[in-house]
Amino acid sequence: KKPLETLQYVIVKWTFVFLVGLLTGLVAFGINMAVENVAGLKFVYTLNFMTSQRFALAFLVYAGVNSILVVLAALLCVYVGPSAAGSGIPEVKAYLNGVDTPNVFSFQTLIVKILGSIGSVAGGLIVGKEGPLVHVGACIASILGQGGSVRYGMTWKWLRYLKNDRDRRDLVTCGAAAGVAAAFRAPVGGVLFALEEVTSWWRGPLLWRTFFTTAVVAVVLRTGIVWCKQGHCGLSGEGGLIIFDVSGNPPDSGGNPDLNSGLQDLLPVIILGVVGGVLGSLFNQINGTIIMSSKRWLKKKGKCAKIAQAIVVALITSVCSFGLPWLATCQPCPTTIGFPDEPKCPTHGRTPNFKAFHCPANTYNDLAGLFFNTNDDTIRNLFSKGTNGEFAFSSLLIYLVTAYSLALLTYGIAVPSGLFVPAILCGATYGRIMGMAMRIVYGPGSMDEGIYALLGAASFLGGSMRMTVSLCIILLELTNNLSLLPLIMLVLLVSKTVGDGFNDAVYQLHVQIKDIPFLEEHPLSFMQQLTARDAITGPLVWFSGIERVGTILEVLRSTKHNGFPVIDNTFNNGKDERQQPIFCGLVLRSHLLVLLKKKQFIESREWGHNNLPQVHGCLSSAEFAKPGSGKGVKIHDIHLDIGEEEMFLDLHPITNTSPYTVVETMSLAKAYILFRQLGLRHLCVMPKSSEGQPILGLLTRHDFMANYLLNLHPSLKQSNHKKIHAYPSFRSPSQP
Amino acid sequence: KKPLETLQYVIVKWTFVFLVGLLTGLVAFGINMAVENVAGLKFVYTLNFMTSQRFALAFLVYAGVNSILVVLAALLCVYVGPSAAGSGIPEVKAYLNGVDTPNVFSFQTLIVKILGSIGSVAGGLIVGKEGPLVHVGACIASILGQGGSVRYGMTWKWLRYLKNDRDRRDLVTCGAAAGVAAAFRAPVGGVLFALEEVTSWWRGPLLWRTFFTTAVVAVVLRTGIVWCKQGHCGLSGEGGLIIFDVSGNPPDSGGNPDLNSGLQDLLPVIILGVVGGVLGSLFNQINGTIIMSSKRWLKKKGKCAKIAQAIVVALITSVCSFGLPWLATCQPCPTTIGFPDEPKCPTHGRTPNFKAFHCPANTYNDLAGLFFNTNDDTIRNLFSKGTNGEFAFSSLLIYLVTAYSLALLTYGIAVPSGLFVPAILCGATYGRIMGMAMRIVYGPGSMDEGIYALLGAASFLGGSMRMTVSLCIILLELTNNLSLLPLIMLVLLVSKTVGDGFNDAVYQLHVQIKDIPFLEEHPLSFMQQLTARDAITGPLVWFSGIERVGTILEVLRSTKHNGFPVIDNTFNNGKDERQQPIFCGLVLRSHLLVLLKKKQFIESREWGHNNLPQVHGCLSSAEFAKPGSGKGVKIHDIHLDIGEEEMFLDLHPITNTSPYTVVETMSLAKAYILFRQLGLRHLCVMPKSSEGQPILGLLTRHDFMANYLLNLHPSLKQSNHKKIHAYPSFRSPSQP
Repeated sequence: KKPLETLQYVIVKWTFVFLVGLLTGLVAFGINMAVENVAGLKFVYTLNFMTSQRFALAFLVYAGVNSILVVLAALLCVYVGPSAAGSGIPEVKAYLNGVDTPNVFSFQTLIVKILGSIGSVAGGLIVGKEGPLVHVGACIASILGQGGSVRYGMTWKWLRYLKNDRDRRDLVTCGAAAGVAAAFRAPVGGVLFALEEVTSWWRGPLLWRTFFTTAVVAVVLRTGIVWCKQGHCGLSGEGGLIIFDVSGNPPDSGGNPDLNSGLQDLLPVIILGVVGGVLGSLFNQINGTIIMSSKRWLKKKGKCAKIAQAIVVALITSVCSFGLPWLATCQPCPTTIGFPDEPKCPTHGRTPNFKAFHCPANTYNDLAGLFFNTNDDTIRNLFSKGTNGEFAFSSLLIYLVTAYSLALLTYGIAVPSGLFVPAILCGATYGRIMGMAMRIVYGPGSMDEGIYALLGAASFLGGSMRMTVSLCIILLELTNNLSLLPLIMLVLLVSKTVGDGFNDAVYQLHVQIKDIPFLEEHPLSFMQQLTARDAITGPLVWFSGIERVGTILEVLRSTKHNGFPVIDNTFNNGKDERQQPIFCGLVLRSHLLVLLKKKQFIESREWGHNNLPQVHGCLSSAEFAKPGSGKGVKIHDIHLDIGEEEMFLDLHPITNTSPYTVVETMSLAKAYILFRQLGLRHLCVMPKSSEGQPILGLLTRHDFMANYLLNLHPSLKQSNHKKIHAYPSFRSPSQP
Repeated sequence: KKPLETLQYVIVKWTFVFLVGLLTGLVAFGINMAVENVAGLKFVYTLNFMTSQRFALAFLVYAGVNSILVVLAALLCVYVGPSAAGSGIPEVKAYLNGVDTPNVFSFQTLIVKILGSIGSVAGGLIVGKEGPLVHVGACIASILGQGGSVRYGMTWKWLRYLKNDRDRRDLVTCGAAAGVAAAFRAPVGGVLFALEEVTSWWRGPLLWRTFFTTAVVAVVLRTGIVWCKQGHCGLSGEGGLIIFDVSGNPPDSGGNPDLNSGLQDLLPVIILGVVGGVLGSLFNQINGTIIMSSKRWLKKKGKCAKIAQAIVVALITSVCSFGLPWLATCQPCPTTIGFPDEPKCPTHGRTPNFKAFHCPANTYNDLAGLFFNTNDDTIRNLFSKGTNGEFAFSSLLIYLVTAYSLALLTYGIAVPSGLFVPAILCGATYGRIMGMAMRIVYGPGSMDEGIYALLGAASFLGGSMRMTVSLCIILLELTNNLSLLPLIMLVLLVSKTVGDGFNDAVYQLHVQIKDIPFLEEHPLSFMQQLTARDAITGPLVWFSGIERVGTILEVLRSTKHNGFPVIDNTFNNGKDERQQPIFCGLVLRSHLLVLLKKKQFIESREWGHNNLPQVHGCLSSAEFAKPGSGKGVKIHDIHLDIGEEEMFLDLHPITNTSPYTVVETMSLAKAYILFRQLGLRHLCVMPKSSEGQPILGLLTRHDFMANYLLNLHPSLKQSNHKKIHAYPSFRSPSQP
């Protein structure tokens, strides 16, 4: 029977991993198609009005469509799925760290996230669909991992294998990787993103499984592209799915002559890294401040204020992107693009480069090429090679300032909003500026401006998100050009180092802003000055091995604890009257609730010890399996009459008799390592001496939070509580 | 003072990481140059004799040079650095798992590894320098991480920060990554290799640090190539360092038309995967059997037998590579290569393609192009694009069988020998055969044979080594062609799955062959049927809090334990005559030795309790820092007179008072997880009840080994002891 079960488990696991990849790929494809078509139609109509010189009408249509799309997204976010606002990456990180907030991965959230991100991206905001896609992938994985639904009749015996946290967590990790893979068409990047940024516990087999998921995503997207090339996708051109395949740009210079220039490129690359580190960390700081201050205000004003905020941001964005291109001077179209003899610009429609906007024939408005485009097309413009000098210095500067400010305002309003695209937009813009400067310094032999744009984007991403390997791989997969590797590595190293000097990574800051009890990998340094005992507060709530039902009910109602120690002290065997109370183990609230629901009571304290198997024989282990999020037995589901409350419940069969323990004198930092590394929910603190209470208390996640500990021990506030990155103390014999 | 120390620590750490990258890159460059020049000279002379029809002399020179080179390598390996034999990857894995075997990373090993791998590779064996380079990188890192040497006057105050296991381990991880990066010029592949294959404990910051190391390696190699292009490198052409840069092949077909063929390529790719899985796992099995059986024989015959074995293998290889090309028929040179009008072949010298060998002018011997080349050049030939039909089917088949058999014989003899190159050679050969078959099935529209060769190599590597993401990235970085990603992924997935069905990965098998007490990530399933108590054997050896010096000395001499529990039972405070003995904590052998060496003794048992600080005030924490491999105080360094032996030693100041503990009833599988995840050396097993002994025993690495446990509990042998990949039991409340 055992090998068969294992086989079933493996089949279920891999099927679900495959489904996560398939569905995430399809959803990503759908979002892309929708955005390209909606935004495409918007631009087609607007530009039609522009060519017939009806500028006011064009603006009205443009701003109106944008506002309606954004408001729809905001309405959905505020009233249907509040968890869908923002990028979702902090939420995924928190879940994989062990914080299971209800509704973060619900079906509603999924739908809102999909529709909302179509709205916000097509509505012209400076946001991306990349972060939201990570959340979408995680949602899909989490919904699949619920193990079916009794209510909707979706039950299948094999699904019981997924009813545990580890497999759910693994599936969500795969979902997050699939999201990144789908967002950037970067399968390896997705795996590394999941590894570097998202997960808290990494297991070997997971590498292999996420890799499979992202491979499925890659195949789905590839099939989608082939299908689109046959003309099924409406307005979305090839660009719709190849999010920014720089190698596929028409004016590709071919080969890499631009990379043999050697050491002369190192200095500008390092400068880019520093700039990216400064601007990125500044972005984190200002954005965090804006969100923190608007949070209080929004709490006071309620839901309408959130909608109003979204409208305001949408209008400001529309005004900027429609108004600012008028500042640019019209430039003659280059003669070398496609038609070598007569200068010719594509004037309207969906062509991203060389927008005419208000300019006369055979000239183009470079600023409109940046502002009056979908964000993806703008990035493609900025990254394009062989287009040195397409953008004027002033245009790039205007765009940089505007995009940076808008991104600061936008990330935090109540719509799904990814941070990758704003970061790439800003970074690529100053990268191109740097490229122009270098062309002045080094002459025409310097690197292409498109490559500088890419490096600039890398620097801003590194400076804000502080990832390294995964960003590097994502950018390489985007550009399909491995020879850029050393330069991208260098720029990421510099920008991350500079950024780390100022503040934390952006997702880490948002985890703090959202007050998520996140367990970092390393203990905080002040924990070394505390012992495990110092973190215990409040009286210990415990049960006897055979406990009165009424007492259990009362305790479950009056506390919110999830675990309770079980202590045998009524156990008198007559031999020795000084029998010490013995710590039996831990029971979980969820298991107690199942037992109460099943009413497996016994008459008296003495009865249970001889016939344990009979009492609980009717309960199978499947009933104690962890149900899906928010689906377990609740305390108010339990209704007992007074007679039942006077009966007893034998807790021994559901007691975990060997929980992980630490001795009270252990340094809290060391206890933290145990707690964090093994991913515990409860850690029992045992007394040093065998007299007295057999257990002193339980430590949970909240007991390791810095704020809690610093309130408990205010004297520690003076010492700076940085993370212990420093060398370990000499007396750690437990390290191998 | 604290922030300054942190700064010093950071500076030292990053400097050393940089040095590891720099030195590994330089050594890799040196090895490549040496191999190319030595092997190049060998081929130049041999081919000169060939062109003048003096075939016997040519063979003598060829076989003689090969044998001398291999014998030199074997002599070094056998007499100077026995740890340098083989690939070294199992040793690096074992070290990073916590098994610190002496001399594995010593300076002698490093030198032997470098010289030996030059000898074995230039000597024409079917071995690579890739595995040895990983070992070389790890050696360099480990030597740097020793924290200076007092003997050679290399001391520096800042080096004390490196005197702990964690930083040494991190440095060795960086070294292994640097080795792979240098071997394949694959910086990202190196990072992922370290992550997927080599390390046992992965920490977030390590990603970042290994990435930096491999970036340094990439820069060093790049500089080396630029330098070589200026003609400083003798016979080594461009190929010397770009190990197999497939994209750089002269007959590059440009673009990727070969990849749009869609689904018709899926079937052959899946077949390749299956073939790779079967051949790869078969390789592991046969090679393991050969090594195990020759091991006994070699033990009996001694060192000379090892040398003889190496000579025999070298001669067989020479005979095969010189003799078998005579079987091939001479083929006319293609007209399209370089000189479109007259067919012309490069006849001799170092040109890898189209060797003339014994063939008349304007014809070439295709088998000589495979056999009569360095392995790197053969791989380049096999991978080359646009050379469909260069090799005859019979030639490829002969080469496949020969290379496979020779690889089986060679991996395991006493020379440094990497496994990547043999695997790539075999895989690429049957990949090309598959490509020829597909050209017959699908006609000229099928994928290029070079790409099939690459996929074949991937399948064999996946089938033998069972890595996924890292192999994929390494192959992508080798070929510099990201569009191959989905196909490589697919072939790796299939071959790994097939291979896993048969046996373990090759490095895992070699860890078992070498009897290394390796802790796998997951506990073995039979451990669920045991408790922690069941793994304890033998009487507990413990010390009192204040112990007689003579007793300590005797215990240290008579046992090999590294940790001892300290129990306070002489401690009578008068209040309560039934005072239980209290478990104080753990002392380490190394700390005891330091204390004995310093002779910090006290006169009587009662003296120490009031003035602890004075007694040990003169010992700084630095003296207890873990010294470099094999450099600590030894038991025979300690000489005490009889008076001193009667004195007492207060162990409290060096006792770790809060070691990690488990209760005796805990499942051994659960204890294993704690032991493995936290990387412990000792795990204390505590009694459930507070009566009796305060500690039952210590579990160490050896107590978790399958053989030990199965000997202890023979009844478990019947049950199959596979790894617990299956779903966890429901009652694991400790998982988050």
